[in-house]
Amino acid sequence: MSDSDFLARRPANHQPLTPLGFIERAATTHPETVAIIHGDQRTTYAAFYARARALASALSGRGVGRGDTVATLLLNTPPQLEAHYGVPMVGAVLNALNTRLDAAGIAFILDHGEAKALIVDSELAPLAAEALKLARTAPFVVEYADPTIDTPRVFPEATDYEAFVAAGDPGFAWSPPADEWDTIALNYTSGTTGDPKGVLYHHRGAALLATGNVIHAGMRPGSVYLWTLPMFHCNGWCFPWTVSIVAGTHVCLRYVRAKAMYDAIADHGVTHLCGAPIVMATLLNAPAAEKRDFPQRVLFNTAAAPPPEPVLAGMDAAGFDVTHLYGLTETYGPAVVNEWKDAWSALEPAERAAKKARQGVRYAALDGLDVLDPETMAPVPADGETIGEVMFRGNVVMKGYHRNPSATEKAFAGGWFHSGDLGVRHPDGYIQLKDRAKDIIISGGENISSIEVEEALYKHPAVAFAAVVAKPDEKWGETPCAFVELKPGAEATEADLIAWCRDRMAHYKAPRTVVFRELPKTSTGKIQKFELRKAAQSDAAP
Amino acid sequence: MSDSDFLARRPANHQPLTPLGFIERAATTHPETVAIIHGDQRTTYAAFYARARALASALSGRGVGRGDTVATLLLNTPPQLEAHYGVPMVGAVLNALNTRLDAAGIAFILDHGEAKALIVDSELAPLAAEALKLARTAPFVVEYADPTIDTPRVFPEATDYEAFVAAGDPGFAWSPPADEWDTIALNYTSGTTGDPKGVLYHHRGAALLATGNVIHAGMRPGSVYLWTLPMFHCNGWCFPWTVSIVAGTHVCLRYVRAKAMYDAIADHGVTHLCGAPIVMATLLNAPAAEKRDFPQRVLFNTAAAPPPEPVLAGMDAAGFDVTHLYGLTETYGPAVVNEWKDAWSALEPAERAAKKARQGVRYAALDGLDVLDPETMAPVPADGETIGEVMFRGNVVMKGYHRNPSATEKAFAGGWFHSGDLGVRHPDGYIQLKDRAKDIIISGGENISSIEVEEALYKHPAVAFAAVVAKPDEKWGETPCAFVELKPGAEATEADLIAWCRDRMAHYKAPRTVVFRELPKTSTGKIQKFELRKAAQSDAAP
Repeated sequence: MSDSDFLARRPANHQPLTPLGFIERAATTHPETVAIIHGDQRTTYAAFYARARALASALSGRGVGRGDTVATLLLNTPPQLEAHYGVPMVGAVLNALNTRLDAAGIAFILDHGEAKALIVDSELAPLAAEALKLARTAPFVVEYADPTIDTPRVFPEATDYEAFVAAGDPGFAWSPPADEWDTIALNYTSGTTGDPKGVLYHHRGAALLATGNVIHAGMRPGSVYLWTLPMFHCNGWCFPWTVSIVAGTHVCLRYVRAKAMYDAIADHGVTHLCGAPIVMATLLNAPAAEKRDFPQRVLFNTAAAPPPEPVLAGMDAAGFDVTHLYGLTETYGPAVVNEWKDAWSALEPAERAAKKARQGVRYAALDGLDVLDPETMAPVPADGETIGEVMFRGNVVMKGYHRNPSATEKAFAGGWFHSGDLGVRHPDGYIQLKDRAKDIIISGGENISSIEVEEALYKHPAVAFAAVVAKPDEKWGETPCAFVELKPGAEATEADLIAWCRDRMAHYKAPRTVVFRELPKTSTGKIQKFELRKAAQSDAAP
Repeated sequence: MSDSDFLARRPANHQPLTPLGFIERAATTHPETVAIIHGDQRTTYAAFYARARALASALSGRGVGRGDTVATLLLNTPPQLEAHYGVPMVGAVLNALNTRLDAAGIAFILDHGEAKALIVDSELAPLAAEALKLARTAPFVVEYADPTIDTPRVFPEATDYEAFVAAGDPGFAWSPPADEWDTIALNYTSGTTGDPKGVLYHHRGAALLATGNVIHAGMRPGSVYLWTLPMFHCNGWCFPWTVSIVAGTHVCLRYVRAKAMYDAIADHGVTHLCGAPIVMATLLNAPAAEKRDFPQRVLFNTAAAPPPEPVLAGMDAAGFDVTHLYGLTETYGPAVVNEWKDAWSALEPAERAAKKARQGVRYAALDGLDVLDPETMAPVPADGETIGEVMFRGNVVMKGYHRNPSATEKAFAGGWFHSGDLGVRHPDGYIQLKDRAKDIIISGGENISSIEVEEALYKHPAVAFAAVVAKPDEKWGETPCAFVELKPGAEATEADLIAWCRDRMAHYKAPRTVVFRELPKTSTGKIQKFELRKAAQSDAAP
């Protein structure tokens, strides 16, 4: 059977994959369903869709079109959700900026991404104004004055977001992308060293990852999603698009605060939220007066670091089911899920936590996930011990790095995306991270996984946060140096912690040095190891 | 931002969409999970995947490759599931034959599809042998002797399916399709008139529809799927591929019998099944001795005809949640779902049934669903009254009709797939079928929806099945003629039923004639109206 012309792709049977159709479907199918809760505001799907189209219309009226970049400097508020639809509806590229960046960092990205427009929250407008002074590019500005807060406007009245949207046509006839390979979003990696890289997402991947979230997070009509994960972080793991597939409800949240989270969960029936372990800690360590009871079980998707055992137990008792995900900006957020097996629930708590600490298996939407020797590109044995580089392949891998052919080619060498993360494959096929390539410590020629040492430290009852990095050493090349933040009121000495580790691992792996201090963390709760690495190095002079 | 070469598609970030990866994922992630239950047999995902690869290897060894057709004449047994993976793993096209066809019908399809191989169940082997005598093509035969039954082998011992698979390599290195537009399956429409048409499915659509089933049927790890819907019917609505996405369990079933269904539901914890209303009737009308209690709620996906109110109530009481789906062979099975709203559950039973009778809204995987005037291609008003033709558009619409350019062009005229079904769009966006184009009755220039009359008849307590067709009439052109099958022991006269209808609709719509008889039904439980239309016509001479 060979294909003839009459069997070629045509509009009746071939349309570009895109998440944009999801909101049209939700708006026509569930027009009265509440799409967005923000303070006292309730936005139905009919209104959400109309506003996204009006935003698209207004952007189009200002000359924004296919391939143009629209940057946003917004918290988790309705305009950020609207931008996830309105911007690509004109074929433009959404560049959601990390709100924790400084003005120079924002200026760099505005220039590198060639932003034509910038939508900014009033609270962040002073930062944006400073960045615009530093930037060469001059995007037009739209300022969102969030009615739930009282912050003075920084840019002229004429830039008002509500007025901008109100002037657009809510019936704007948007088109799907000309090609599903068209770029939908541009996300800059946090870049611990050097300039950040601009990761390009295409419509195809965004639609598939968003759909994958429905499957792996078990979302359904009636699901209520709480915005604890920043939407500037891998487009909120694509959940701005996922929620529309099931016509679920978004609950906005300007800041991750315990009381606001508990109130949302109890008052709005939240079923799903995502966040780094720090969000779990915030929930668990909240004062009793801020905690609320709620009848539903809530799925908490976490990533970034394996949840320690006491946190898992605490979350379970508090009404949360924790799922461990893994991915990178380059994989649209989560592309790997620790798919839980019933039998594991019967294990002892420590064994259960060990299972939970593994990153897991590929999303159904990801074609390939493997741990390969980066030199030979051969898979490592699935023995849970042999370390290789975690690599991804398939439709939920980025298009490439914006204006960076060399980094793109390097990332895709050998036909796989190189994550830079080191890990193992267990005999049951689940992968587990052992370290970032740059975080491995080589002491006397032996590789030491900083994660392994950190896991041991986290088991010590006095330790709140721990990070282990390489400290240059004349004799050994490098030795493990631990930075530790103790729990409030808890006590432990350097000797205590070194002895604790030596009891739990080969002696050469135990820290030689322990520094007690508050650990620097990113906006998403990741410990900033590069800062600690610098500290360990400057401290290393003999 | 314009794309450069380094941002073009490459294997690391672009892979063909295909359902084949789903089984590889299930086998590596959940190797010990039971994939298939068949009698006393239990096949794990590791074994299912190995057997599918061995089948692919064996087919490849016999020269079957890209674009070749492999026909199957099988009941809902493990080889039919294996064929859904093993056949496309060599790039071949699965042509699952309707087991209710006669030898001439099968011969036509074998010839038209140019089958190179035929896998046949022993029980159907006499039929296959007869068909092969009539066919010009001479596929090689593989015969499956199902161990759960005792049927003599018809073809030589050397054709044995188990031996065929055993000779293949379970580690066979299959490849994804070269192009996601490659054909994965060929399904012949039952064709009430003229030769059947061969509907071609591509890998892209099969993957997307299979994923859509997970979303709209709420399938998850642990789901157990009972095979009441024939797998030869639109590839079992793509569920052979759907179940692998969640690593669920298939429960095979040679025949739709009440006892076997209840036993499977109670013994294996079935959570999902699909079927025509006749399957519901079989469940509800089963003798008490064949019924079993079960603790779980079971999702029953039905299509073909709106479930009548008493059936819905009976199903609810018996532990089933009924979802109404709609689609055609040309849309990979279900592409439309009656997405239920909580508020509707509080309605009176009759109103609830009226909501349930609507076909609904598009799957998230379907890009466009509309009711259009086929002359102007303009949408009908969403008033629930204006009849137009239901049309589909997008990635879960067939590639076209095999070796039939003219029918393909006709089906895709104006950029939409023309379903041939007449329907309305309600103000809330849900569509409802009013008739097949050929089933509409035109009496005195007025259109009468045969479905509307049938719905009225179904509400009569004595009516088991009803079908209304046009009867030629000198004065009116056509008049509605009802064929009615009464419930066992129930009584009603022609005058009773006509009066019943006149009480419930405009008088011109009520049947002029009522014929009491057993109604002819297809293998999937659809009433064969063309037979009745013939009967009404032959009866029409003045």
